[in-house]
Amino acid sequence: MSSQAHYSLGLDFGTLSVRALLVDTRDGRAVAEATVPYAHGVMDSALPDGTPLPPRFALQHPQDYPDSMKAAIGAVLDTARPLGIFPSDVAALGVDFTSCTMLPVDGSGTPLCLDPAFEGDPHAYVKLWKHHGATEETDELNALAAARGESWLPSYGGTVSCEWMLPKIFETLRGSPAVFEATARFTEAADWISFMLTGTETHAAAFAGYKGLWHDGAYPSDEFLTALDPALTGLIGGRVSPRVDPVGGIAGHLTPRGGALTGLPEGTPVALPMIDAHAALPALGMTLAGDLTVILGTSTCHILNAAEAREVTGICGYVRDGVIPSLCTYEAGQAAVGDLFDWFVTYCVPASYTEAAKAQGMSIHTYLRSLAEKKCPGESGIVALDWWNGNRSILVDPTLTGVLSGMTLATRPEDIYRALIEATAFGTRVIVEQYEAFGIPISRVMAAGGIARKDPLMMQIYADVLNRPISVSATTQAGALGSAIYAAVAGGLYPTVTEAANSMAAKAERVFVPHPDAVEAYEGLYRRYRELHDHFGKR
Amino acid sequence: MSSQAHYSLGLDFGTLSVRALLVDTRDGRAVAEATVPYAHGVMDSALPDGTPLPPRFALQHPQDYPDSMKAAIGAVLDTARPLGIFPSDVAALGVDFTSCTMLPVDGSGTPLCLDPAFEGDPHAYVKLWKHHGATEETDELNALAAARGESWLPSYGGTVSCEWMLPKIFETLRGSPAVFEATARFTEAADWISFMLTGTETHAAAFAGYKGLWHDGAYPSDEFLTALDPALTGLIGGRVSPRVDPVGGIAGHLTPRGGALTGLPEGTPVALPMIDAHAALPALGMTLAGDLTVILGTSTCHILNAAEAREVTGICGYVRDGVIPSLCTYEAGQAAVGDLFDWFVTYCVPASYTEAAKAQGMSIHTYLRSLAEKKCPGESGIVALDWWNGNRSILVDPTLTGVLSGMTLATRPEDIYRALIEATAFGTRVIVEQYEAFGIPISRVMAAGGIARKDPLMMQIYADVLNRPISVSATTQAGALGSAIYAAVAGGLYPTVTEAANSMAAKAERVFVPHPDAVEAYEGLYRRYRELHDHFGKR
Repeated sequence: MSSQAHYSLGLDFGTLSVRALLVDTRDGRAVAEATVPYAHGVMDSALPDGTPLPPRFALQHPQDYPDSMKAAIGAVLDTARPLGIFPSDVAALGVDFTSCTMLPVDGSGTPLCLDPAFEGDPHAYVKLWKHHGATEETDELNALAAARGESWLPSYGGTVSCEWMLPKIFETLRGSPAVFEATARFTEAADWISFMLTGTETHAAAFAGYKGLWHDGAYPSDEFLTALDPALTGLIGGRVSPRVDPVGGIAGHLTPRGGALTGLPEGTPVALPMIDAHAALPALGMTLAGDLTVILGTSTCHILNAAEAREVTGICGYVRDGVIPSLCTYEAGQAAVGDLFDWFVTYCVPASYTEAAKAQGMSIHTYLRSLAEKKCPGESGIVALDWWNGNRSILVDPTLTGVLSGMTLATRPEDIYRALIEATAFGTRVIVEQYEAFGIPISRVMAAGGIARKDPLMMQIYADVLNRPISVSATTQAGALGSAIYAAVAGGLYPTVTEAANSMAAKAERVFVPHPDAVEAYEGLYRRYRELHDHFGKR
Repeated sequence: MSSQAHYSLGLDFGTLSVRALLVDTRDGRAVAEATVPYAHGVMDSALPDGTPLPPRFALQHPQDYPDSMKAAIGAVLDTARPLGIFPSDVAALGVDFTSCTMLPVDGSGTPLCLDPAFEGDPHAYVKLWKHHGATEETDELNALAAARGESWLPSYGGTVSCEWMLPKIFETLRGSPAVFEATARFTEAADWISFMLTGTETHAAAFAGYKGLWHDGAYPSDEFLTALDPALTGLIGGRVSPRVDPVGGIAGHLTPRGGALTGLPEGTPVALPMIDAHAALPALGMTLAGDLTVILGTSTCHILNAAEAREVTGICGYVRDGVIPSLCTYEAGQAAVGDLFDWFVTYCVPASYTEAAKAQGMSIHTYLRSLAEKKCPGESGIVALDWWNGNRSILVDPTLTGVLSGMTLATRPEDIYRALIEATAFGTRVIVEQYEAFGIPISRVMAAGGIARKDPLMMQIYADVLNRPISVSATTQAGALGSAIYAAVAGGLYPTVTEAANSMAAKAERVFVPHPDAVEAYEGLYRRYRELHDHFGKR
């Protein structure tokens, strides 16, 4: 380790912008940070040439990624230079990205949409993770997989999401045979930016395993793909790279082009790209077996590290070497959390409340919370099922819907708001109990994401409902910090991700400890939740 | 029948005012109408002398009744005189009143609160039907009746309401032994005003049967009353008149005092008083066996005439000769209807909706209806249980609560509003099916009350859900018209209530006919409602 090159750079490609974070690898301290939005943002109504888009489309322009990245790194280096930190002091680079965010490229790795022949074709652009154009193709794919009894299907909860790789490719085949024909590779945007930097084609196990139906070391069979559409025969190893790389390794080193795109020296190591939510784990210090990270955003993702691989009924799946080397990392989820509270304040809170919040200079969420926190657990009698966007874990049924029970004429909006918070906590407890029922231990719980930082009432309720202490991190840049940690390993500054995280992870800002009285009250309410859960969840 | 005296006068004593209606008995045409509020209205915070009232008290001042009545009749007669109609042309007088609205009187029939010794004692005043001061006494009464297995208890759905006679008297005994001691009679306000007019003490079967626990020809036993409190020994026949009069008869004739109070000639016949909701039946023409009248207000009351008396599980009870002579009339109910929609628009509709309604010059109810009526049955997927104030029929469980199921992030307020309308319709269907299951036929359905007149969407949904035509009357004074019809019989202008109603009833303004497509769609939704009903309704 050079006495100077002890900095690493994390790049976090989000939905609307890229963040660059320069970190001192000795203690994880952020030296400089810059966030640059994508020029085209999310294209959901028209292409740059004005071509209108069908409903449910969510595209991006691939040129935005290197453009915004170059600007963000440039800003970071400009900030660092007066501190005596220069490009040569950056030991390595790490990248995380939204996923499954796909694009078609030609044999040289150039996105098809940059070819004037395809600039008016939506399918030639990047399909963002939340692009939902492939609903019909997904239905067809799920029906076929169920009819054939495909062995991988149960591992994905019996349903392939329209957000994943194969539906997006199948949609391109159906929607634009010319783009499909001209595509040399369908690639994750993460892998494409890594290729731009290193000239090397990689594909991390997490993308393949969580989004690409790669299970037990294999993709869906050619027989299945052929039955779906003869044009898909040979897809894996053809238009999709057959390569799968274990996490924690190196993607390659900056090429001359990579150097020009970053302003960093040629030869600087680049870590294997990560899925953005996963990069957060080492940034939060959650690198051990038994660590459960609950990331609360529009939806909630429960990521659990385990030493052993076991099938857990109703849990989306696991990938070995997907997030932390040598561990299996499971993902479970609740499909509507932040979305649910936004729905509630948009459609279910009267003017008298929004005006009172305004008069007190509070957001409506803060105002409702101020009323809800005066209530005791169970006081309102309301018990809800948080299934406004279906149930992802452990029932894996997107057709399930929300339930509210216990309303009276004395029910007020804050009672329902609190019941919805409690319902999301109960939903998390169901997932925790399912892991434990299948013999996978949970020793620590950390909450992250915007809701975790901003809603202490919700975090206290989670601690009370789970009857476990819940740590919350103050960091707002877990993704970028995580990428900088993977970079520190790729750059040889630490031998393992865990050791890098021990030095570099963000500290927990606050620990919510269960209150015994509330724990007891929630035991009774949780039994009522489970009763509703089992009643409405039965098929 | 005198060629001149073919008018009758109906007096409808409501919660806030009394209405007087002068009617031509030949065709039911209203000649003159006047409504006069009570000077003291509803006293729920203090007595006239400033004595503060406990929570849940709802009292009235008895002097308001004759005062407002005199003014209302005076106004009606003033209107009639220029038309050539004089007091001597009024053949008879009829009275209906809220119930159970009770007061204590001394041996001369004078209300105790008029005695200066008691003017500061809340228990000396009229306890209005919705006075809920007797909750503790009601709990004690219900517990004792259940423990003793009182035979009449099941006929009242297993629970005595705190609004009924015995709880109100028991509360006075406990709250003011001096008032109890000084009381010669506890009397319904209806009977008191009738006594003021005629000097005769009466007590109609409807009051005794529906509110007084008079069942199968007997009140609760002295053993029961003694066990409740030895001071109640001998209550019936003592402080409560033992007399029970069949409906359709005459209470008496105007005394000199009655003449002075009304401005009508001494000797004018006065019909036996009625409960206000029941007086509506002849006014709506619902006087035959098989006629179901659904009165939609803050709560809904289902009143069914039947030829035979049968016990129907979960139906509040029936009284023979209670409403229509020689028929049994059943009452069932839904505890929250108008109240439920008021709760919804007060607490669950966002500012964007209330502002849009205002911009379009609509009430929020009308605005929501305009959005809800564009939806098809079942389109939103939401199914609700309308139990915001418990379930009166057929589960008879005031502790049951409201349920909403089927919400998604695409759910809008109008979807929930429509689901609540549908839930109240399903609740009515459960009652209709219960009557039929016990062999009591229903041949016609008439809806009345403010909601029935104002909400055509709701009435169409009721017709579709019940798969029966539903007639709606335009009359806003069914109570007063009904009292005028009973008066016409008391005055000898018609031999029976049915014959009087045939000539005098208000005509149905509109008939809602089921739409076959909607009927079919609601069959499926009703099965889901029943499934929720049976699941959440089980004890």
